[in-house]
This record gives sequence, C-alpha cells and structure tokens, in this order.
Amino acid sequence: MTETMLERRARLLGPQMTTFYREPVHVVRGEGAYLWDKDGRRYLDCYNNVPHVGHCHPRVVEAIATQAATLNTHTRYVHDAILDYGEALTAKFGHRLESLVMVCSGSEANDVALRMAEAVTGKTGIIGTDNTYHGNTAAVSQLNSKKIPVGGYRDHVRQVPAPDNMAPIGGSQEGQAEAFARGVEAAIAELEESGHGVAAMILCPYFANEGFPTLERGFLDRAIEAVRKAGGIIIADEVQPGFGRIGSHWWGHDRLGFAPDIVTLGKPMANGHPVAAVVTRPEILGAFQEAFKYFNTFGGNPVSAAAAMAVLQVIEDEALVENARDVGAYTLSLLQEVQARHDVIADVRGAGLFLGAELWRDGAPATALCAEVVEDMRGRGVLLHSVGRRDNTLKVRPPCVFGRAEAETLAEVMDAALEAVT
Amino acid sequence: MTETMLERRARLLGPQMTTFYREPVHVVRGEGAYLWDKDGRRYLDCYNNVPHVGHCHPRVVEAIATQAATLNTHTRYVHDAILDYGEALTAKFGHRLESLVMVCSGSEANDVALRMAEAVTGKTGIIGTDNTYHGNTAAVSQLNSKKIPVGGYRDHVRQVPAPDNMAPIGGSQEGQAEAFARGVEAAIAELEESGHGVAAMILCPYFANEGFPTLERGFLDRAIEAVRKAGGIIIADEVQPGFGRIGSHWWGHDRLGFAPDIVTLGKPMANGHPVAAVVTRPEILGAFQEAFKYFNTFGGNPVSAAAAMAVLQVIEDEALVENARDVGAYTLSLLQEVQARHDVIADVRGAGLFLGAELWRDGAPATALCAEVVEDMRGRGVLLHSVGRRDNTLKVRPPCVFGRAEAETLAEVMDAALEAVT
Repeated sequence: MTETMLERRARLLGPQMTTFYREPVHVVRGEGAYLWDKDGRRYLDCYNNVPHVGHCHPRVVEAIATQAATLNTHTRYVHDAILDYGEALTAKFGHRLESLVMVCSGSEANDVALRMAEAVTGKTGIIGTDNTYHGNTAAVSQLNSKKIPVGGYRDHVRQVPAPDNMAPIGGSQEGQAEAFARGVEAAIAELEESGHGVAAMILCPYFANEGFPTLERGFLDRAIEAVRKAGGIIIADEVQPGFGRIGSHWWGHDRLGFAPDIVTLGKPMANGHPVAAVVTRPEILGAFQEAFKYFNTFGGNPVSAAAAMAVLQVIEDEALVENARDVGAYTLSLLQEVQARHDVIADVRGAGLFLGAELWRDGAPATALCAEVVEDMRGRGVLLHSVGRRDNTLKVRPPCVFGRAEAETLAEVMDAALEAVT
Repeated sequence: MTETMLERRARLLGPQMTTFYREPVHVVRGEGAYLWDKDGRRYLDCYNNVPHVGHCHPRVVEAIATQAATLNTHTRYVHDAILDYGEALTAKFGHRLESLVMVCSGSEANDVALRMAEAVTGKTGIIGTDNTYHGNTAAVSQLNSKKIPVGGYRDHVRQVPAPDNMAPIGGSQEGQAEAFARGVEAAIAELEESGHGVAAMILCPYFANEGFPTLERGFLDRAIEAVRKAGGIIIADEVQPGFGRIGSHWWGHDRLGFAPDIVTLGKPMANGHPVAAVVTRPEILGAFQEAFKYFNTFGGNPVSAAAAMAVLQVIEDEALVENARDVGAYTLSLLQEVQARHDVIADVRGAGLFLGAELWRDGAPATALCAEVVEDMRGRGVLLHSVGRRDNTLKVRPPCVFGRAEAETLAEVMDAALEAVT
C-alpha cells in the first residue's frame, strides 16, 4: 500500500520529492506532541517546529474555522485582524521593530527582507554563512550553501565560515567570535571591491542549520559593527528560534544580544497555516515601499491573522516559553545522561526546546551512524532528524507543548537506539 | 473611527499600503457574492476572484476546519490529501501536464516556473508583455511592467507589446496576432544576441492585466512557434482565468487553443486559503528537481490540499463553470445595454465572469472618469475596480456564484453611476 503511495508521489510530485525515513510515515492524525499513522501507531514528534503550540491545537483550529466562516479577503479593504495582530506581534520586539509585512512563507519573508536591505542601503551585496538555508525563492536560494541555486550562484553573495562546536573556526571556542568577524570583514572587503557593497548580513541568530553551536552573548558584536560600518544592515532570520522556542527569550537575537534591523518569521507563526512576516523599522519599510509597491494577496488576510493571533495567545496563556525553558533544561539534562552512557555522543547542546546530540566515532563525524539512529528511533516511535555541517547531530526540535514525560521517552528511546546501532 | 484604523494601518503596515476607494471599506463578513461592512451595509462583490466559489463557502470552510483539527503537517511524511488533489487537478489538464508542485502563492508558483524553464532549457531569457504583473518575488517582479523591481530591471527579460482592443498593435484587430508575433520574434533575436537565449515566454492566456482584449483562437500560434523554435518553453499563468472563470473552458490556454509546457495557478485555487501550484510535464519537473532540491514547508500540506479539493468539488457540484458561462453571457448582454445608453463606454468585452467596459471620451481614454465611476459604484454598494494599459476599463470579476439578479444589480448601478458622473 505504501509502495503504491510512493509511486503516486513520484508520478505526481516528482521522483526527487523525497520523504523522511526509509519507511516513510503515513500520517493521518496529530495532537499535541504526537502524530499517528494509518495503522493507529503513535509517534512522539521530536522534530516539527511548525506545530509550535502542538499539532491541531483546538484554539488555533477554532480561530481558523470561525474566521474562515466569517470573512477571508485581502488587505485592500480595512480589517481589524491584521492590525490587532500587528500590534500584538510588534509588542514582542524592541529596537523600534514596529512595522510589518505579512506574507505566506518564510521564503517570501526573506525575499522581501533582502529587497528591503537593497532599497534602504542602495547596495546589493549579501553576507550569509557557509552552512545555511533561508528559503527557496530564486533570490533567497542564492544564500543556500547546500542547495545550489538553479543557474548557479550569482556574484553578490559571500558565504562566511559559520561557528561550530566541534571544529571551531579560528581553532578554538574562545577565538570563534573573532574568527567569525574576520570572515565577515573579508567578505565586506570583497563585496566592496566587486562594486556590490554591503546591503545586509543575514543570519539565523541561533545558527540552527549550522548545528546551533554554543555561543556567548555578544558573539556577533564585532561582525555586526563591521557590517554597519560598511553601510549594511542586519537581518535576523527567526524562522527557527523565534516565538520562544529557545526558552530564555522570545527571539534568538535577544538571547545573543544584538539589535537587528529586520526580523523574518515563518514556520511556527500560525502553527502550520501558511503565514510568515517581515518585521522592521518604519523607515526601512518605507524605503522598500517607496522602491516597490509590494502587495501580497493572501498575506495578512483575516484568517491568517486570526490563526497567528491564536498562536500568540496560546503561547502566553499556556506559558510555552517557560515550558520551553523548563522542559528544555530537563531534556538537556536527560540527553547528558544518555551521553554519559554512550561515547559516540561527543557533544550535547542547545537552548530551550531546540537541542542536539552530536555523534563522533574514532575522531571522525559519525554521519552514517547518526542516520541509523534516526531510522532506529523512527522504528521505536520517536521522530527526529539530523542537522549540521557534518549532518551528524541528532536534532530535537519538538512542538513547544513537549513535556517531561515526552522528554523521558525521547531519552529512553535515544538510549536504546544508540545501544542497538553502535 | 475609520481614520484611526487608517492611522493604525499606516503605522503598522506602512503609509504606502494603500486601500481600495477614497473611503475604504471596513469589511467584517462575506457570503456568496456579498460582503458586509462594520455598519451592516451589504456590498455586491463584482471584483474578487479569490473567493472563487463564493465568500466563506461552507464546504470549503468545513474542509479546512475538519482537516485543521485532524492533521496539518508537511510533505516529508506521506499523506493522501496532496495525492488525491494532485490527481483531481491534473485530470483537468491535457498536454501531459501530469505533475505538480504545490506552493503558497501565485508569486511562489511563477518563481518556480521561471526556474523550471531555466533548468530544462539551459537558457535564461524570458519574454513577457509590456503591461503585465505575475507576482512579487524578486525574480518574478522582473516581469512586471508597472511595478519597477527594487534595484531596477536586469537584462534577461524582454517586454513585448501586448494586444489591445482599442489601440491594436500593428494598427488593426486583424493584424494583432502577426504584430504580437513580430514583437516576440524581435525579443527572441535580442535575447539570443545578448547571450541569454530564450528560456520561456510567460503569459496570462487571457491577458487579464493587459485589459483582456478580444482575441481569436490561435492568436498565439505564430509567437509560440517562434519561442519553441528558439528552444524556449511556454508558461501559462492561469492565476486569473483558471478554474472555469472564463465559462467556455477550465483554462485560458484551452480557450485560446495552445499547449503550455507549464501552468501556474494561484488566487482562486483554495478560495482564499494560501494555496498555489505549478503544473507541468514530468520531465520538466524532473529537470527542475535535478537542478534544485525544492521543498516548500507549507506547500501541499493536508489542510491546503483539503481546501483546494473542496473548491474543485464545489466547482463541479454547483456547475460553476456553466454558471460562469451562462451568467457571464447574460451579464455581458446587460453591459451592452448599458453601453447603448452611454457613449462613454467605447467597448464591452470579456468571457464568462471576467468582463469589462472600457471608457473613452472625446477620443481619449477616460481614466479619471473610470476612477470616478468605481468610487460612485462603491458608494452605491457595488465593488469593482479598473484595469488595463490605460486604466480606463471597469473590471467585472466576481465570485463565480454570481447570479442573474446580481448581474442586474451590477448593470443598474453602473448605469446610475455613469449617469451621475458624466
């Protein structure tokens, strides 16, 4: 049966539209931190950040259903929902990030953010890291270090070495901030030399795809200073760390201690409803609108705004940032216990409910083994995946309703899987 | 009160996030072909194509609500909904358009389509018309003739003269197809000269933004032949004419009688839920996936697929293509009666429920007058807008549940407005 579905998928969606896992999960239902397959088997979801407040949260579903039955139209008419949401969202930011553009995907958000930078600076050069992903539009795919864009890379992007826990740039943990800044400074020099100049540095302030190395507060200060000195601005892609996942703060940039000029938001923003946004200072939005009369038909429609508002309210009412902090710390401690039992775990790290266990064996990254652990854990009913430059880190990034019982299941199953495959 | 809302909008969404109408409509509810404002006033919606099967259609709302309460996740897991929908949708196409990529907006769809063309042809040149709009990503905004992209136009796009009813290219209605083809041939020569070559010609097969001139079947044949001979492919942007709006056919390309290689879909696809798609032949999808490992987190998720499937089913079950044909023809006849009473209407045209009345006075396009008519009709409770190169055509493009009574109201109100403002 699954084979037939995979054949249908290949025929309709293309043979390269791959699934997770050797035996893909045929999902039919979700609730909280759990998914169920067609045979009624339950899986603990330790991977999905999109269902931020839990799969199918009833308040979000109710908000969507009620608004969809009432009105769903675009923002050429006046409607309260986008304004109420815009105020509630921007209240979560400092740094005069008071204006927003609502769009449908994180890719659209970053596509807009890059043009905002170009509009406000008059320059075109972009600096990102050498192990990142910011989305899939033609423009944004220029930033991706693993998915080479169609037609190849253009000349206006510089990928600088990303920080790393196990193979720190500059040769040591302590030297990473300086090494990172030197990389940025070299990129600035190149972009100025080539005539692009520096429009922006765009970063996930948690360096999520880079493997979320452990970084001290202020890590980016010198690099940011260099970008600003060159006339560029800072874009924080908060698609992954945002909305309190990291436990200590609502946003990754507040945890790292810097003031972005533009913040982009996506996946978790409306629990899976296609909603994303760019939050920025009024003058940057103004420069962008002056340069380009941007209008997004679906962006910020009443249903999208209602869904996003329900997510914000649930985060508050269910204290999910605090949950991410507390359960995250507990989960980290359990992963450290697993580490103590398995030499193959070289590093356990992360913040809030965004954690990882990096696998090395015989002085080399245990990438294949990591994939085996992912498969074995899927077989045991726990869903997660791998991440990082070497793809040897087990990524734990569950819905933020993840509780202590779920953390214990995760640790037990990871322990058993490591026992089985090593 | 409205002023306060407008101030809030300007503060949150930017001062250039304009609304329709001098006195914007503060919408609160929608049903069928009607919208209601905060004071309970009802408006006949003659403009919105997004609510294709009617505002807040209960079957679409139910599909969204039920699926959102059951499961909403991405396509790295296996799920039936996207496959069932993919089969139902592609069954509506000929020309081996058997594969699809689901995305969140028409902009994302066209952004993908352009890269498919680049991947499959190895060329980069794009031909569009000189009075069009295909979306708002950085790449797609290069095609727009009115909204100049941030940073200006790059070199790989050629805008060819669009056909026109009142000022036909080539000097006559009969000569337009040849004149259009000559424009395309000149663009091909330029793109080959510049080294780009021809990747694709992208067109709305209804030339909706161009003012939907009346064109004979086969109009594009010579131009398409030239593009194919140069190694390029044809992208039909069906965001506006698609899903049966034009009455005679499901798709604009079938009405005009040509076989596109790629079709892009958007706005009406899920009645306002952010859903869009690219439909193409398997080998083109394969070439794109080979060149770029595209994955769209929200694209084709179970709720999006359910919403889109409900729209397809309602179109069938309520015979909305036939309704577009029949009520469209009736509406056209009523507009012709209005034309007979008002010299200022120089032309009435269109197909199905996508119609227009073009205003001229003293041998010149009556653009300002057209704007006055739009405002006056809004005051009388009928919502529409203007379109076309000269922006002097009243655009009638209502939800496809528009009935004969609504057509009569539209005609009466247009008649009264013309009486009042001329």
